[in-house]
Amino acid sequence: MIITIKRDQDKKQLNNLLLWIKDLGLQADISEGEHSTVVGLVGDTSKVDIDLVKSLDIVENVTRISEPYKKANRKFHPEDTIINVGGYKIGGNHFQIMAGPCSVESEKQVTAIAKAVRESGATILRGGAFKPRTSPYAFQGLGVDGLKILLKVKEETGMPIVTELMNEKYLDEFADVDIIQIGARNMQNFDLLKAVGKVNKPILLKRGLAATMEEWLMSAEYIMANGNNKVILCERGIRTYETYTRNTLDLSAIPLMKEKTHLPIIVDPSHASGISRLVRPMSLAAVGAGADGLIIEVHNDPPHALCDGAQSLRPEQFDEVVKAIDVMLPVVNKVRG
Amino acid sequence: MIITIKRDQDKKQLNNLLLWIKDLGLQADISEGEHSTVVGLVGDTSKVDIDLVKSLDIVENVTRISEPYKKANRKFHPEDTIINVGGYKIGGNHFQIMAGPCSVESEKQVTAIAKAVRESGATILRGGAFKPRTSPYAFQGLGVDGLKILLKVKEETGMPIVTELMNEKYLDEFADVDIIQIGARNMQNFDLLKAVGKVNKPILLKRGLAATMEEWLMSAEYIMANGNNKVILCERGIRTYETYTRNTLDLSAIPLMKEKTHLPIIVDPSHASGISRLVRPMSLAAVGAGADGLIIEVHNDPPHALCDGAQSLRPEQFDEVVKAIDVMLPVVNKVRG
Amino acid sequence: MIITIKRDQDKKQLNNLLLWIKDLGLQADISEGEHSTVVGLVGDTSKVDIDLVKSLDIVENVTRISEPYKKANRKFHPEDTIINVGGYKIGGNHFQIMAGPCSVESEKQVTAIAKAVRESGATILRGGAFKPRTSPYAFQGLGVDGLKILLKVKEETGMPIVTELMNEKYLDEFADVDIIQIGARNMQNFDLLKAVGKVNKPILLKRGLAATMEEWLMSAEYIMANGNNKVILCERGIRTYETYTRNTLDLSAIPLMKEKTHLPIIVDPSHASGISRLVRPMSLAAVGAGADGLIIEVHNDPPHALCDGAQSLRPEQFDEVVKAIDVMLPVVNKVRG
Amino acid sequence: MIITIKRDQDKKQLNNLLLWIKDLGLQADISEGEHSTVVGLVGDTSKVDIDLVKSLDIVENVTRISEPYKKANRKFHPEDTIINVGGYKIGGNHFQIMAGPCSVESEKQVTAIAKAVRESGATILRGGAFKPRTSPYAFQGLGVDGLKILLKVKEETGMPIVTELMNEKYLDEFADVDIIQIGARNMQNFDLLKAVGKVNKPILLKRGLAATMEEWLMSAEYIMANGNNKVILCERGIRTYETYTRNTLDLSAIPLMKEKTHLPIIVDPSHASGISRLVRPMSLAAVGAGADGLIIEVHNDPPHALCDGAQSLRPEQFDEVVKAIDVMLPVVNKVRG
Repeated sequence: MIITIKRDQDKKQLNNLLLWIKDLGLQADISEGEHSTVVGLVGDTSKVDIDLVKSLDIVENVTRISEPYKKANRKFHPEDTIINVGGYKIGGNHFQIMAGPCSVESEKQVTAIAKAVRESGATILRGGAFKPRTSPYAFQGLGVDGLKILLKVKEETGMPIVTELMNEKYLDEFADVDIIQIGARNMQNFDLLKAVGKVNKPILLKRGLAATMEEWLMSAEYIMANGNNKVILCERGIRTYETYTRNTLDLSAIPLMKEKTHLPIIVDPSHASGISRLVRPMSLAAVGAGADGLIIEVHNDPPHALCDGAQSLRPEQFDEVVKAIDVMLPVVNKVRG
Repeated sequence: MIITIKRDQDKKQLNNLLLWIKDLGLQADISEGEHSTVVGLVGDTSKVDIDLVKSLDIVENVTRISEPYKKANRKFHPEDTIINVGGYKIGGNHFQIMAGPCSVESEKQVTAIAKAVRESGATILRGGAFKPRTSPYAFQGLGVDGLKILLKVKEETGMPIVTELMNEKYLDEFADVDIIQIGARNMQNFDLLKAVGKVNKPILLKRGLAATMEEWLMSAEYIMANGNNKVILCERGIRTYETYTRNTLDLSAIPLMKEKTHLPIIVDPSHASGISRLVRPMSLAAVGAGADGLIIEVHNDPPHALCDGAQSLRPEQFDEVVKAIDVMLPVVNKVRG
Repeated sequence: MIITIKRDQDKKQLNNLLLWIKDLGLQADISEGEHSTVVGLVGDTSKVDIDLVKSLDIVENVTRISEPYKKANRKFHPEDTIINVGGYKIGGNHFQIMAGPCSVESEKQVTAIAKAVRESGATILRGGAFKPRTSPYAFQGLGVDGLKILLKVKEETGMPIVTELMNEKYLDEFADVDIIQIGARNMQNFDLLKAVGKVNKPILLKRGLAATMEEWLMSAEYIMANGNNKVILCERGIRTYETYTRNTLDLSAIPLMKEKTHLPIIVDPSHASGISRLVRPMSLAAVGAGADGLIIEVHNDPPHALCDGAQSLRPEQFDEVVKAIDVMLPVVNKVRG
Repeated sequence: MIITIKRDQDKKQLNNLLLWIKDLGLQADISEGEHSTVVGLVGDTSKVDIDLVKSLDIVENVTRISEPYKKANRKFHPEDTIINVGGYKIGGNHFQIMAGPCSVESEKQVTAIAKAVRESGATILRGGAFKPRTSPYAFQGLGVDGLKILLKVKEETGMPIVTELMNEKYLDEFADVDIIQIGARNMQNFDLLKAVGKVNKPILLKRGLAATMEEWLMSAEYIMANGNNKVILCERGIRTYETYTRNTLDLSAIPLMKEKTHLPIIVDPSHASGISRLVRPMSLAAVGAGADGLIIEVHNDPPHALCDGAQSLRPEQFDEVVKAIDVMLPVVNKVRG
């Protein structure tokens, strides 16, 4: 960490700062320039609150040189983390497709979709039981009942399941869920992160609506610092000024995150745009960018299930997307399944 | 709600949409234009999922004409909501100043600051016991012990207190807290919103880091729909591309929100910029914009409490800010206290 | 266009609005609702200033139903526009790769790079003579001398060239340039758009740093309304709050723009991130998203040309990218060259 | 400037970088850490292209310690710049109000408005002759004829005038204009900045729609580096994800820019929101934030001049705003006129 001190500053305040640095167990290297003094901090600076230092009167600027995340950092863990979910590997040269309905509606619906997407090549079943909704008047999901349906279909089809947890008080009900999803709006619900950090189960951590890559990694770090290293990252679009799409899918995050971290990273092309017509092109784009997998919404009967069908692919469209992906995978050195 | 249908569309799909609209108990007025068909929805459209309709293949565009929030909507509640906190009124022509340390450190510290800010004109004491931190390695606050200190100082000084709740499981411990704060990162933690919606206590709802005004109002609506109408909104800066300030304080939100809602709205000038030198000018700007109050960080001994002192005002600086505010208040038809 | 009027409004102001609508040659359909009155405008509303109407006291909301762009609108021109550049076709099922150095340095440099990229499959040579730079102290390009070098290399290699115009006063010097580039910072330099609208030459219109897709299309419309229909759009990354990348490449813009407009659209993967390591993955992602081509920076001797080499690919890296693209093109129904 | 080098790097590349630094006339201080090597650059680093260095393979991070702007930098020019416009001073403890119609319509209109706003306290007359418009089909202003009207009214009323220049070819026609405005969309039209840098006349430089404060200062630097030090900055709202307001007025930029630069800075409360009802609160907020002045749209006959009237204040509303400002000015140590 490099702290630039304004020129002509009160020596007392600088000394206070230097004492405080020493108290944190860090060494301070000082070099005097013409217009400013530069203090270099040597040691484990992950504990230093950068905003705090920035706000000091005598400080002009602060730059972190080492990243604030450690367990998620590729520097200290150069090999790709590969996470095993019911025999399917996520990370490395594997490419997994998770698919299923946005919301769980009935056992019949979920079973039909599960079988169709498994047939096409999906290995993991997704489905929402608890649904985070902007409006208190919107349908909030079937909750525990939806979860039970998912678990039944898991038994029937043998597919591992991924579903969202919104409240730590339901953790017991999630005992047989294969991957616990933390949604974008809860990416900085630190108490929830701590709770799933104590679970021995893969966590799918969606990027927050307006989270920087660093904040996203710090949220992964929360889970890992509490003991759970099985974190799968999921890019799902960020908030920008653009209004033609609901969110802007940030695919450049894929190769960049792969440099910063050893954790696997997948893409959700359905939620980013909110437009089913964009799912195919953005799925192929995600493959090109180097993603470790996709999580796609599929619905079997859009006309009679307006809600989910609308932003979802139909099974036959999904099948075509998987076929196109298969042509592309060798280019990115990935193997499906 | 106005739905524009693409031209040359499959009549069957349009009929499905019209049936679905009818099922929701709404009336559909259809008018055919040269390039598109427009469907106007009449009735209570707050239940309609706008994203869902937008994502339909036959739909070109959807516009909401009536707002999705009702209880928070000034249209249905034209008079300002005035919330009574220990005898102090928030809203209407009242102007309240909440002040105190960022984090609770000790009873001695909080008492000293409380007495100083009360002397200058603050009516409500703020202080953080549970601290949401981006890093799992940063100090997370004193927790329940910090809360106990705040309650003790409340007893000693008679000042009502406001402090942040991060997890509904601590609600019992918050029984004697006067205002429960929901932080920016939890603004869309819907389970937490539901929980504080069942409490009979004012809720200070901070705007999310990247929340639109509409999402912010929808989060207020969550609390109100669960039975608690005592919501105080708090603008604290939004995320933009600018990096010189930590966040961009959106003061135009103040007069605009006052048109949209009857709820009181205050400003946090300390967190937005993260720079104590900006607290005075942004406090005065907030008064000019028409805010119903301020929540300001004040620390008594910055050199020995580097953490809080840094981004906080010293009591004597705070005193000068209050004096400046007093000159301005008549211009905005407000009375302090 | 749909105008929602606030309830309980002065009839005189509403009548003024209706008269003004009539004066614009438009028809107004009025329907009274419980909480608001809705006015539907029928006719050519592209002349209506939406911001103006929005700002009226009696107006609650305005929604455009037909887009403000016409010549660029796919609705009125359903077939893809295909632009011929020296025998190479841009648009439709064609995929063209433009490549070359960021800045023109010398004839020798440009020739060597041109030959290398042509060998690998690039059909059009890019190179900057006039360089828009944030700092007045940075190298601003060789200017007219750089242009002369590009034209010489065009003659030697037979490759059409694309280069940026920053000031209409140089239009004569651009007589033999094949594609005139309008840079991101000039996307709303309306006088420059009008000037190139009067030229009979393809224009490469880069998306502005923070331009919405609609503003981008309106800038294309400026060129087309002045008589030049040969507009090639170029996505190059937009400004967001993320700081790990210089800009966020918005690849979802590709399939969405293809719905809105018939104009071809290519992607610049070099400038978006500013990191040469991301050029390959983002090139492949752009292909997956359905782009009509790429414009890539290539430099032959990075160690001795630090400036350009740094964010550029080396010819051998570029060659590998083209080979990977070739595997992918059938998936998106495109043919290179 | 601090360059962090990745660990285990090719020594040859590092040496190339060090040679290049030396070639730029800078000194390089190297210190080896456990996980990275840090290179400190000493000397005038304003010529160093930070993006270029960032993009090098061996570089992990680059931080500028000294700002890239010099002439605009308060460090090298601690006293406030005060600019004299026809006897009125802008900067220091002066507060000037510029007012007038959005677009020039007729001599009668401009004269009436000019007299009204002068009466209320405006000292400088604003009015648009050349209007930058997103749509090629929208009214583009009266152009040179509008300019002639403004100059006539200047003669009649004695008020200095400020108006926008969009194209350097009209510079001769602007000979008697008192302040040349560069609009937000042209803030990085570098050729236009160079052109007005050669003029001996105050330049009102509006902040770009999505410009960082640093880019804004660099554009001021362009003008100053070309010889013209009379730059007045104007905050007019930045682009964010929020859609309730057209732009988000960034008032925290005022106190922050006052730390970074000695140039005066004013606020445009009319364009930021596009809503006339917000002009009063945002004007008062701008005063509180410490602005050196305001530029406000005023129209005398809104019902018959729908275009301008709509987002403008009426003269009597403007008069009330000035009266409110007068109460506030002592708090910020400013004197009007």
